Amino acid sequence: MLFKVEMKVNLPHGMPAEVAAEIKAREKAYAQELQNQGKWRHLWRVAGSYANVSIFDVADNTELQELISALPLFPYMDISVAPLCRHPSSIHEDDS
Amino acid sequence: MLFKVEMKVNLPHGMPAEVAAEIKAREKAYAQELQNQGKWRHLWRVAGSYANVSIFDVADNTELQELISALPLFPYMDISVAPLCRHPSSIHEDDS
Amino acid sequence: MLFKVEMKVNLPHGMPAEVAAEIKAREKAYAQELQNQGKWRHLWRVAGSYANVSIFDVADNTELQELISALPLFPYMDISVAPLCRHPSSIHEDDS
Amino acid sequence: MLFKVEMKVNLPHGMPAEVAAEIKAREKAYAQELQNQGKWRHLWRVAGSYANVSIFDVADNTELQELISALPLFPYMDISVAPLCRHPSSIHEDDS
Amino acid sequence: MLFKVEMKVNLPHGMPAEVAAEIKAREKAYAQELQNQGKWRHLWRVAGSYANVSIFDVADNTELQELISALPLFPYMDISVAPLCRHPSSIHEDDS
Amino acid sequence: MLFKVEMKVNLPHGMPAEVAAEIKAREKAYAQELQNQGKWRHLWRVAGSYANVSIFDVADNTELQELISALPLFPYMDISVAPLCRHPSSIHEDDS
Amino acid sequence: MLFKVEMKVNLPHGMPAEVAAEIKAREKAYAQELQNQGKWRHLWRVAGSYANVSIFDVADNTELQELISALPLFPYMDISVAPLCRHPSSIHEDDS
Amino acid sequence: MLFKVEMKVNLPHGMPAEVAAEIKAREKAYAQELQNQGKWRHLWRVAGSYANVSIFDVADNTELQELISALPLFPYMDISVAPLCRHPSSIHEDDS
Amino acid sequence: MLFKVEMKVNLPHGMPAEVAAEIKAREKAYAQELQNQGKWRHLWRVAGSYANVSIFDVADNTELQELISALPLFPYMDISVAPLCRHPSSIHEDDS
Amino acid sequence: MLFKVEMKVNLPHGMPAEVAAEIKAREKAYAQELQNQGKWRHLWRVAGSYANVSIFDVADNTELQELISALPLFPYMDISVAPLCRHPSSIHEDDS
Repeated sequence: MLFKVEMKVNLPHGMPAEVAAEIKAREKAYAQELQNQGKWRHLWRVAGSYANVSIFDVADNTELQELISALPLFPYMDISVAPLCRHPSSIHEDDS
Repeated sequence: MLFKVEMKVNLPHGMPAEVAAEIKAREKAYAQELQNQGKWRHLWRVAGSYANVSIFDVADNTELQELISALPLFPYMDISVAPLCRHPSSIHEDDS
Repeated sequence: MLFKVEMKVNLPHGMPAEVAAEIKAREKAYAQELQNQGKWRHLWRVAGSYANVSIFDVADNTELQELISALPLFPYMDISVAPLCRHPSSIHEDDS
Repeated sequence: MLFKVEMKVNLPHGMPAEVAAEIKAREKAYAQELQNQGKWRHLWRVAGSYANVSIFDVADNTELQELISALPLFPYMDISVAPLCRHPSSIHEDDS
Repeated sequence: MLFKVEMKVNLPHGMPAEVAAEIKAREKAYAQELQNQGKWRHLWRVAGSYANVSIFDVADNTELQELISALPLFPYMDISVAPLCRHPSSIHEDDS
Repeated sequence: MLFKVEMKVNLPHGMPAEVAAEIKAREKAYAQELQNQGKWRHLWRVAGSYANVSIFDVADNTELQELISALPLFPYMDISVAPLCRHPSSIHEDDS
Repeated sequence: MLFKVEMKVNLPHGMPAEVAAEIKAREKAYAQELQNQGKWRHLWRVAGSYANVSIFDVADNTELQELISALPLFPYMDISVAPLCRHPSSIHEDDS
Repeated sequence: MLFKVEMKVNLPHGMPAEVAAEIKAREKAYAQELQNQGKWRHLWRVAGSYANVSIFDVADNTELQELISALPLFPYMDISVAPLCRHPSSIHEDDS
Repeated sequence: MLFKVEMKVNLPHGMPAEVAAEIKAREKAYAQELQNQGKWRHLWRVAGSYANVSIFDVADNTELQELISALPLFPYMDISVAPLCRHPSSIHEDDS
Repeated sequence: MLFKVEMKVNLPHGMPAEVAAEIKAREKAYAQELQNQGKWRHLWRVAGSYANVSIFDVADNTELQELISALPLFPYMDISVAPLCRHPSSIHEDDS
């Protein structure tokens, strides 16, 4: 089941650089683990921002919550979620 | 080059049903033609709405404008566009 | 799987009263059918408005879209959707 | 008398982890006490967020204020309230 | 139980003057009847607008919905509602 | 001359409790003094919030500014003001 | 007593040109009459718009309402009002 | 050439009182100097706020930027600007 | 003197095609005339929309108002204006 | 390929003056380097603000992201981006 998830990162200005680097490293590892599992199906940078557009493929709302709330950057992001489903005009097999 | 495009359809309440049906049929044919050409890479319905989230893959901004302004439903939609690029944490080949 | 759905009805001022009455009657019958099926789990009026707050219980996003887009009042409503899941502090069995 | 209450938690980034844990523990105990009393009738997590959707069942506006302002997380939340009443199409006994 | 209710009137430009006058006359009679009953406790014009700020005193949310949805201008107004209760610093007997 | 004034309190999270208590005590004393003078005619808590809805009765805009800017909580509040006047449908003597 | 009043004109597209011309002529005559009386103290066009910024000098909120609601364009304008008073740094005699 | 400028002051809560006082004193001196030069033509307090509405009379956009960015409170204000010009219905000589 | 002007076209759905075509033709001729005069210095389409971003070079606010209000599409556009001036980091001669 | 980029600078109030000066110096040098390369085609100050309107000319979305995210002020700015393309009414060679 697919969800569009948009994330905008707002790191506090006073966060020490090494703390930020450590969180980002964990975020990247976690994001790649979820991609390898097929749960984070797409991940794009929004050009000109510290933000992304993502497509998650999860079993249900509960799994979506578990995956997103475990993001190392979760406390520092504005996140919006939209449930997706197959569009009647889509011809792509991987659009659902 | 990828763009996220979100479209929300607002048909006028007074539009005759056959006019609406004809426009929607042309919209579907056009959407499928662009998908076949690889230019409309993803197309999802936002659940609970008459709206979609799409990923376009175009040569440049000019082609994006040509494709979107030619949509039969173009005069009846609120459309928002965000330029995308490869995210440094993405592992998917088709995310760029 | 649960979703909060909020619906605000905006009937066109020019709609003949008998047309409005017929649409509302179909809406009511459909809403009660979905409630009997257990898919529309809660339905409240927002006091002081022509709007409701609802809880839907569906198999997935696809079913949510099917149920909502089939509402007779669908073309005349502003609708917003939020995916819900079990809250770790809830003690109610029927909160998931 | 029912109210929909939406709460979004915004803990200050500088709050020590043990302070946050203590406040959250008190919040959970209090939330469960109100649920046991029948005053916090429903409590759902919004998937992909640190937020909830709740249904309160209180004697009147005064009790709503007393219950909400006593939440341990009250100073750290954006809260919105909507008064609810029975919807004429509802068939559920517990929708009022 | 008190509610602040704000109403902004938006009559359609095409409404015949005599229809508007008849609706407004019924609105005025109804507003005065509710004031006489003690249910519409305050009614002020917002200076420079076709809008009002009102204080309703009702038994519960259900009565609030009944009174507001019966307003002759109800289909033509943007309405917002806020539940009120006694403020701990108020010294006025009639503030609750 | 009447004004609706809405105040939302946002105390900084880092403010020491005794400082907050002292400011609130002064605010309460001041609010009651203005009520005794007849200048702060109504004061209601918005249920579920740290906010109030008030009606001020002042000689003119200048006095409104003097009274509000002297509030001990003034630097910590979002404040909105709407000028009020008699509504042609009001029957209450104290609505102007 | 001074108020800043901002007005944005939104004439319906279907209004016949002669009707619009007649309303605008009455608006201009009325605006000039109020200026001659000293009640409409300033009137500026916002460059690039069909909108104005005005300063009204009235006895009280009631007079403000009477003057604005009598504008021939009143039903076709978005209007916002802000009460003004003397600024402690102003040196201009005519700023109050 | 005239501009409407609206300024809302947001001093950081942690700013020492003597620092704030010194900035405000410089702001006042500078504001009065610009008024004496005829460049800051009007300056009003918005009643119930720490904000002002001003009319600047400058040679061009460049001078507007120079004057505003030199305000001692500039780093602490939300500022909005609207270009003004003569309104065809104005009869005041000093409205342009 | 430069202004950024953004225009979003909203033609009424009921406008006959030949009327729209005639207005657009006049708009194009007028836009090109202003460009030839050097007053409309840049004109770009916003990709994926019926909107443009423009840079006007005018003598003053008055000329800006004259040029924009004379646009054949003026009654059908949402228009926003921002005054521009030379940026201290610009190295382009034509940025002022 | 052209993009309109708007940047609003929000330096933290607590940033030491010499740190701010150093960041601004690097920002200026970088901005001028990109202008010399032809990638930052226009750069204007918005009068009355600490903000700019810019036109970037880049190979694609990826380059836009690289250039903007490397701005020394990037962590301290609100940035919005709009893709541009040639307008059919433009006569300027340098509008694409």
